[in-house]
Amino acid sequence: MTEANRSPAARIAQSFARQGLMTTFGASIALPEPGLCEITLPYCPAVTQQHGFVHAGAIAAVLDSACGYAALSVMPDDTGVLTVEFKINLMAPAKGRTFLARGRVLRAGRTLLVTQGECFADGSDRPLALITATIMSLPASRGLAD
Amino acid sequence: MTEANRSPAARIAQSFARQGLMTTFGASIALPEPGLCEITLPYCPAVTQQHGFVHAGAIAAVLDSACGYAALSVMPDDTGVLTVEFKINLMAPAKGRTFLARGRVLRAGRTLLVTQGECFADGSDRPLALITATIMSLPASRGLAD
Amino acid sequence: MTEANRSPAARIAQSFARQGLMTTFGASIALPEPGLCEITLPYCPAVTQQHGFVHAGAIAAVLDSACGYAALSVMPDDTGVLTVEFKINLMAPAKGRTFLARGRVLRAGRTLLVTQGECFADGSDRPLALITATIMSLPASRGLAD
Amino acid sequence: MTEANRSPAARIAQSFARQGLMTTFGASIALPEPGLCEITLPYCPAVTQQHGFVHAGAIAAVLDSACGYAALSVMPDDTGVLTVEFKINLMAPAKGRTFLARGRVLRAGRTLLVTQGECFADGSDRPLALITATIMSLPASRGLAD
Repeated sequence: MTEANRSPAARIAQSFARQGLMTTFGASIALPEPGLCEITLPYCPAVTQQHGFVHAGAIAAVLDSACGYAALSVMPDDTGVLTVEFKINLMAPAKGRTFLARGRVLRAGRTLLVTQGECFADGSDRPLALITATIMSLPASRGLAD
Repeated sequence: MTEANRSPAARIAQSFARQGLMTTFGASIALPEPGLCEITLPYCPAVTQQHGFVHAGAIAAVLDSACGYAALSVMPDDTGVLTVEFKINLMAPAKGRTFLARGRVLRAGRTLLVTQGECFADGSDRPLALITATIMSLPASRGLAD
Repeated sequence: MTEANRSPAARIAQSFARQGLMTTFGASIALPEPGLCEITLPYCPAVTQQHGFVHAGAIAAVLDSACGYAALSVMPDDTGVLTVEFKINLMAPAKGRTFLARGRVLRAGRTLLVTQGECFADGSDRPLALITATIMSLPASRGLAD
Repeated sequence: MTEANRSPAARIAQSFARQGLMTTFGASIALPEPGLCEITLPYCPAVTQQHGFVHAGAIAAVLDSACGYAALSVMPDDTGVLTVEFKINLMAPAKGRTFLARGRVLRAGRTLLVTQGECFADGSDRPLALITATIMSLPASRGLAD
């Protein structure tokens, strides 16, 4: 299969596999539908903060990746994504064995995509963290296609 | 030395050493003065995103820790810190060999502290990322003293 | 009716009536259920920006009030609310005749409440703006009960 | 003077004069230097919240305008500005007679400009509110030149 005719799922799986940080975290990715992305983060001591919870930065990382790939899943194949900014509210300590970060596209403009996401612990339906992220679509000519 | 008469610097060094994520990152901490905290993150493939830059989540993690410890450095010894929310603007790709995340306290209230910070690559004075973080002071009775 | 036995709706109506800015805007309020608040803003030239759309600050104002009163609607009667911080994404120009700002409580802690909201023009179901706001609950002893 | 050869200051003064909301607020604008903008808001009951302080939305509005015009002051003459998103921390009640909102450009990219600002009451040097705003530069062809 050439780069040009990859499915969106294959393209995102390849890009995700190049994220060293996600490999370090042992995270995995799923794309239930276009515009939606789920990343699973297992607890391990390598991602903790001082009280033994998962570090807010690790939660931010999986939420940011989930939002970025949700955006990429609705973009043309020869474009790349870059996070412009994000905002996170941490509503409860990140305590648990498995964390699900879900990101989705709310509005897809020509240049900017607005995404939102939540992070859940151990199958709970009450989010422990929320993200709103602005993602920029980069033309392939910038040399950063995903 | 008992817990009770630690200096702020010793207390923060001990708390930082318990952050598994910072150990994973090979990050180090300095406290130039009360209300100011600097964390250094060396580049390594384990913290990258798909284009080989440092992942926004890793930048967020060191900025969040820098803001949290800047806050802790001006708080009573028997309190703990928790990040309520933060917002990050990523102004340039995190490209370089060494990243300096600097956090400082802007306003210290009874319950909430407002902090800001920047991240710089390789000694540059132009920040590549900005953070504004709201930190909550937790009384020791919550069992989360730092 | 004394202050002490007001219904939440009456209490919020009284507080809203004291917001000079909402009177200036000709805005009105509704409380469909606890934890949910809707504010309606009619278009008028007094609230515009330079292109004739409604100013982002006016949209922010009604979204902030909607989130604050959503929070107040689930809080004890002798407390007051104060906005700690908010973040707004403006996804489309605020073009229309009537704007609906809806705020709801996502998480109600002892001290802080996390709220989210959207703003819609002319009955559309696609939001033109999003807010995430952190609201602080103030004990009556601070003299700011609502 | 034609539109084409206006000075940046004249262009911004004309755009500001078209902001109905700023007229409603009795606000005035100054441009001390390129990339910096100051807006003055006098206290009046028409801009208050329920405790008699200035409403966070009014503070947001002057901070947003200050950031937008700071951005416009460094952009080509045939472009327009649109706020993509902003985040505000309210660190103290907006209590006073005169409020100064200062916005400045931190990073000017081709498409996006990152700005920051503070709001001060009555000549104080301690900000009561902080903003970080992302501003988009629109080509004249979109019909929204300022």
